[in-house]
Parts: sequence; structure tokens; C-alpha cells
Amino acid sequence: MQIDLLVFPRWLVPVEPAGVVLEEHALAIDAGRIVAVLPADEARRSFEARETLTLADHAVMPGLVNAHAHSAMTLMRGIADDLPLMDWLQNHIWPTEGAHMSRQFCEDGLRLAAAEMIRGGTTCVNDMYFFPDASAAVADSVGLRAAIGMVVLDFPSAWAQNSDEYIHKGLEVHDSFKGNPLLRAVFAPHAPYTVSDAPLRTVRKYANELGIGIHMHVHETAFEVASAVEANGKRPWQRLKELDLLGPDFIAVHMTQLNDEEIAEAAQFGVSIAHCPESNLKLASGFCPVDKLLKAGVNVAIGTDGAASNNDLDLFGELRTGALLAKGVSGDPLALSAPQALHMATLAGAKALGWEQEFGSLAKGKSADFIAVNLDRAGTQPVYNVLSHLVYAANRDQVTDVYVAGRALMRDGLLLTVDEKAAVQKAREWQQRIKK
Amino acid sequence: MQIDLLVFPRWLVPVEPAGVVLEEHALAIDAGRIVAVLPADEARRSFEARETLTLADHAVMPGLVNAHAHSAMTLMRGIADDLPLMDWLQNHIWPTEGAHMSRQFCEDGLRLAAAEMIRGGTTCVNDMYFFPDASAAVADSVGLRAAIGMVVLDFPSAWAQNSDEYIHKGLEVHDSFKGNPLLRAVFAPHAPYTVSDAPLRTVRKYANELGIGIHMHVHETAFEVASAVEANGKRPWQRLKELDLLGPDFIAVHMTQLNDEEIAEAAQFGVSIAHCPESNLKLASGFCPVDKLLKAGVNVAIGTDGAASNNDLDLFGELRTGALLAKGVSGDPLALSAPQALHMATLAGAKALGWEQEFGSLAKGKSADFIAVNLDRAGTQPVYNVLSHLVYAANRDQVTDVYVAGRALMRDGLLLTVDEKAAVQKAREWQQRIKK
Repeated sequence: MQIDLLVFPRWLVPVEPAGVVLEEHALAIDAGRIVAVLPADEARRSFEARETLTLADHAVMPGLVNAHAHSAMTLMRGIADDLPLMDWLQNHIWPTEGAHMSRQFCEDGLRLAAAEMIRGGTTCVNDMYFFPDASAAVADSVGLRAAIGMVVLDFPSAWAQNSDEYIHKGLEVHDSFKGNPLLRAVFAPHAPYTVSDAPLRTVRKYANELGIGIHMHVHETAFEVASAVEANGKRPWQRLKELDLLGPDFIAVHMTQLNDEEIAEAAQFGVSIAHCPESNLKLASGFCPVDKLLKAGVNVAIGTDGAASNNDLDLFGELRTGALLAKGVSGDPLALSAPQALHMATLAGAKALGWEQEFGSLAKGKSADFIAVNLDRAGTQPVYNVLSHLVYAANRDQVTDVYVAGRALMRDGLLLTVDEKAAVQKAREWQQRIKK
Repeated sequence: MQIDLLVFPRWLVPVEPAGVVLEEHALAIDAGRIVAVLPADEARRSFEARETLTLADHAVMPGLVNAHAHSAMTLMRGIADDLPLMDWLQNHIWPTEGAHMSRQFCEDGLRLAAAEMIRGGTTCVNDMYFFPDASAAVADSVGLRAAIGMVVLDFPSAWAQNSDEYIHKGLEVHDSFKGNPLLRAVFAPHAPYTVSDAPLRTVRKYANELGIGIHMHVHETAFEVASAVEANGKRPWQRLKELDLLGPDFIAVHMTQLNDEEIAEAAQFGVSIAHCPESNLKLASGFCPVDKLLKAGVNVAIGTDGAASNNDLDLFGELRTGALLAKGVSGDPLALSAPQALHMATLAGAKALGWEQEFGSLAKGKSADFIAVNLDRAGTQPVYNVLSHLVYAANRDQVTDVYVAGRALMRDGLLLTVDEKAAVQKAREWQQRIKK
């Protein structure tokens, strides 16, 4: 049988089944899909490939899924650090956004983010930011898979004036890329403290009608929870529950403040949680109880948050920090093992987006979204255990090849769909403008 | 004036004074020493250099100091993961060491470690392992600065049979490289639970006589402290205090279990602490109270621990994890700012070793131990704040140039003193042997 591509890696990490590492195996790809994961010998006998990719020192695994990002904020990377969340937002980020936000800002920011994400092995991003039309256009043009957040806020921005307009314009964006297999719209009401009940009810209504997910910051800090209790007499989680928001199509981001009852409810409602370990640490927001959540059966994915807070879109870094931190926080060195961490950064992200039938693991019939990581350097040798190296030793600069739906976005360290030099140049121009 | 080398970086980060970033400046080097840090114009007028290094997109900073490593354990990188400390030690690491430990193991392990460390911008390592003679020989041959631990244990190993022999053989190693400006011996009694009072008294006696430092794991876990209290009725710290071990020449590694009185005493005795954030997280050992220690005026350095536990010798990774974790643990996003984290990974390490007059910052008269980090890539652009990027966004693969005492160990990504391919090959051979 003739097919597009045969990949022969040193190690093949399908993520599903968990903990499996295949050697002497191949990945057979045709028309953007995985047609087989099979022994290398058999692959050579069964298929005639138009292209063969031999990766003698590499682990091939599913592309990483960034379950929470504000991608275009790359333009503000490191603009303000070592500050508390509210000071950072109110005195630095929001004023900068207020002065400079535009469709062009979002396009240029997303292009820089795309270069960074592809280089680092990210093949899908769940994004939340202004001008989602710009984000969708750039993601489409560079071939990155994306869940585009239809952001909703009570207050005005350069993108929309009020919650009705946010929802209305968001739905227009949603309609604009219907049928595009790499793009999907997700409602993105910002947070319980920035969106009131009426728009949240509207979001739930449309989400049900259109089969669209919902992506929201929830319980990021103890301050958020305490303020809500003081203002409304209830915790935000309780309010969202009463508004019927919690369900398998709901992604709650951060969730550092969770009592045991809420953990049980997260499992019961089938909510997914987007854990952002580095952002939570850097802003001292608190610790997400990842080990408890996993033991309760909750789907926990992982995200970078925006590069203005974090200060990168590096999922390999996040994955390692997450795996280490879960052990420290739970006091249990068995918490969040290497295979669990890899699952969190791939299949759990796909599941959070309701997209796990399409990608997140290397299995027959799924979209060919995969990456190669070169382990042939002093810092990742010798290799007793590939899974352990991918989590605890490799870093994003060891990613050499990135494919989405069978299309190469990076080959042997060379970006093919983003002009990185141009993207960096644009970012520097924004920096000059913002500095003034 | 004719000199050896002029370095013109985009940014110069001297670390001392703290928080300073110089642009349009140069580093003038002659005979292995920094002869001036001065404006670029002035440098061009004042000096005629045999060699000029222009680093247009780079930050130049002091080389990183690894304040605690078991370098040769690279040969066991990832051999056992996701386990509690005692299970990991007793059922995996110690049996492997028991079966395979030899001078050759340590030489080959250190050569792999040297390749990894130099690639990652480490210019000095405080090492603790068997066959310190082998470690010293390899460090010397590759031009790495090292504090060589004269390991002391109550129980026998391939290196020595009893504590007397450990001390005796250690002192022979010490004598063997006297006068070598890059090597220094440090007593390395393993831990309170593996070394009894008599050898610790001997160590203190020789340390005083010879002006040698002492490097020891202390209060790594709550279990260690509780066991000691049960066995001897006192906390290990108290016992070390009574044995007169605590002083400005003492480096206490880990220190995750510290009450307020002990923090005050650490400051009072001038003890240095080697913080190993990733090791402490991975083994769920506890959290070192870094913010409290710094506020008490304690000198806190940073180390990687061994690659078998951690699973690398990546100080950029450690530095970032440390900076993030300190905020999370203290609940204060102002804790361990980027400039403080850079100080911790450079000058504080030098000070812990009593070597801060010689290196750890870029200042006139100091040894030319420096590194260059290339920030020209999507993931570290734009650059509002170089210090923030070095801590929160850059990673070890962005290090391009490494110098120790004016000698280039890496130039433009090329290792000059270690044959990396050969070192990796040897490591793979050990892996085959150990796997059996």
C-alpha cells in the first residue's frame, strides 16, 4: 500500500496505553492520519512511503497540548515581574493592553507565540485573548491546531464594548472557521469576578445549542474566593454550579483553592482542570491539588498561561515543574509519575477540549499530530527510561520535528510555516512602542 | 595596553552590584583575569586585544556555580524514578553503586557530567562522591573549576573501608592538587545519619588546621530529623552544633526541615545552605524555607544534586524552579526575585566555598569565569528585562560560550575540552553493564 510518510524513531511513545515505549516500531501516515503503529519490519513490508523519516536518536510522541494560554501576550514577555497578581494586572498588564490592544497586536503576538510553541513541541493551544479572529487567522496560516477562545467580559476593550457584543462577535468568529478541521471555538468567559450572571447564562445556552466548550479562570487565588464569599456569600465554584456551568464541556483553569467537596464535585460533573503550575508559583497564587484531583478521577490537563506572567509558552518546562511540584505538594514521591505527566500534557488536554478522538495519542485513525525529541546529548544520556527523560531531563530545545495533521511545521529544527526572524522583528517593534 | 581578550556582549550582567545590567559595555581579560568592566568605546580606546568576541544577541554573566552535585551519578540518570528517598537509595542506587563503583566509573561519569555542565553554563561544581581523585583528574583535564569532596562515611565502599581511611585518602587527594588554582578540597561527610561523632570531630580538627570547608547533607527530610530525635533525643542540627561543625566554612545541603531557631542560628554561625529545589520536590523531601533564610541573612546557594535523582545537572532549570518555588512556598510573589536568584546561582555559591574573592561576579581582578546566553529566539523575545529572561525564560541550551579563568571551554556551542561523543559512548557502555 502506498502512503505519504513512514516514521522510524528510536523510541515511540504512544501515550496510550500509558507507560508504553515501543522500540523497532514505525508510525505510518497517510492523508494526515495515522494508518498504523506497527513493528518496523512489518512497516517496511506493508507500506511504500513517498517519504521516510528516520530518527535514530529520537523519541516520537504526540504533540503537546497547551490547555491554557493567552498566546499573543508574548509581546509583553517579562514586562513586569516579581509582583502580586492584582498589582501586576492592574498596574502593568491592563494599562499596557488598554493603550496598545488591536487586531495587529494580536496577530503579531500570536505569530511570535506560534514560532515559540512549534519550536517547543506544542501542536495544539487552547487560547483565550482579544481579537480571536486574529488568533484563528494566524493559527490557520501556520498550521497550528487551536481552540480559539470567544472571550467574554463585563467591561469594554478594544475588541468589544459589553458582554453581548463579546458573545455576538465571538459567535461570528466561530461561524467563520466552521469546517476547518484544525480550529474549534470555545467560550472563554474570563473569570467569575469579571463576568456577571446574565452573560454566563447566555454562554451556557449557546454552549448547549452549538456543542461548544467553556474555558474559564476559576479559583486562581484565595483572595478571589474570599472576595466572592464576602460579596455574594458563596464561593465562585458554588455560583458556577448554580448557573449550570459545570459539566464535561467546562475547563476550569488554575483551581488552586479547592476543598474536598469541590474535588468530588469536579469528578462528578466531569469538569476538566487546566493546571498552570509555573504561573501559580510565580504569582504565589496557591497550589492546585493535582494528586488529589487525579485520585478522584478528574481530568487534569496542563497549560502555560500567558508569557507575560510565566514567562514563556514552554510545555516541556511546565510538564516538568508540574510533575515535580505535585510530589512536593502532596508529600508523596509517587504522585504524578512520568507517564501520568506525559498523559496530562497530551491526551488530557485533548480530552479537556472534547477532541480526544482526534488527537492526543498515537493510535490508528487519529490525526498525525506528533513531535520528535532528540535525546542524543550529554544531558539526556544514557537512556534507561525514555519516559523519565522526557519529563525530568529533556527540554524544549531538543524538539527537532513537529507535525500537525501530517503536515510538517518543523523539520530538523527548521520552522517551515513561520518566518521566525520576521516575527521577532515585529515583536521588537512592539517593544519599542510599548516602552514609550 | 595589549590584552588577551575583549568581550562585547549585548548585555553584561555583573551580578555585583545586584540588579545591574550594562549595555554598550565590554569585559577586558588578560592572563585569565578580568582587568576591566568598562564602556565599549573606552575599551576600544584603551586596549588592544589579541582576540575579540562580539556577542550581539547575548547576555554575558558569571559562570554558574553548582553548590551540590554527585556528578558521576550521570551514569545512573533515570535508573529509578518516582520513588521515596529511602526506597530509591536502598533498593536502587546503593545496590548499583555496590556492584559497579570504581575509579573508572567515576572518571567516565564525571566526563559525561562535565560535558553536560559546561554545555549548560556551569563553571564550578561542589562535588561529593567516591574516588575524588578521579573527579579531580577529570575536572583538571577539562578545565572545570571544582571543589572536590573528600567523602566520609561510617561504612565501607569501593573507595575506602572505614572513616579513618576515607579521611586519610581524602587528605592525600587534597595534597595532590595543592597549588592548582581551579581545584580545592572540601570535606564531605555524607550526612548525620551515615557519619558518627568521632569522624566528625576529626573532620572539624583537620578543617581548622588546613583551612578546608565542610559539605554535608543536613535535614533533607522530616524522617531524618524524626529518626535522629528518636535515636539520640536531639535534632541533627543540634548534634552538629554540639560537635562544633557549624561555621562559615560549613555548607548544609537541602535543609528542608528548619525551625525558626535553627534559621536564626544558621545566620549567626554564618553557615551556607545549598538549596536543591528539584531534588527536594522530586523526592518529596520537603520545602527549604528560602525566603525566610534570605531575610535572616543566610547565604543560600543552589545545587542540582545528582543526575540519578533529578535527573540532570541543569542549573538554569534549578534556578528557575528555585525562583518560582520560593514564591509559592512563602506565599509571596516578591520572594526570591530574578536578581536574587542569579546571585544565588553565582556569587552565593562562590561564597559558600569561601572562594568569592576569586569568582562569582564580573569584577576587576576576579578570575574570568563567564558564560554567554543567546536570547535571539522566539521564546526569549522581546527583551524588556534581561535578568527576568535569564531566570524565567531562557534555558541551558541557549548557552553558547563558556570560559573558566580565561580559557574557552565552549565556543559558539562547540565543546573544546571534552569529547562529548566519546563521553556519551562510554556512558552507554556503562548502561549496558549496569542493566545486566
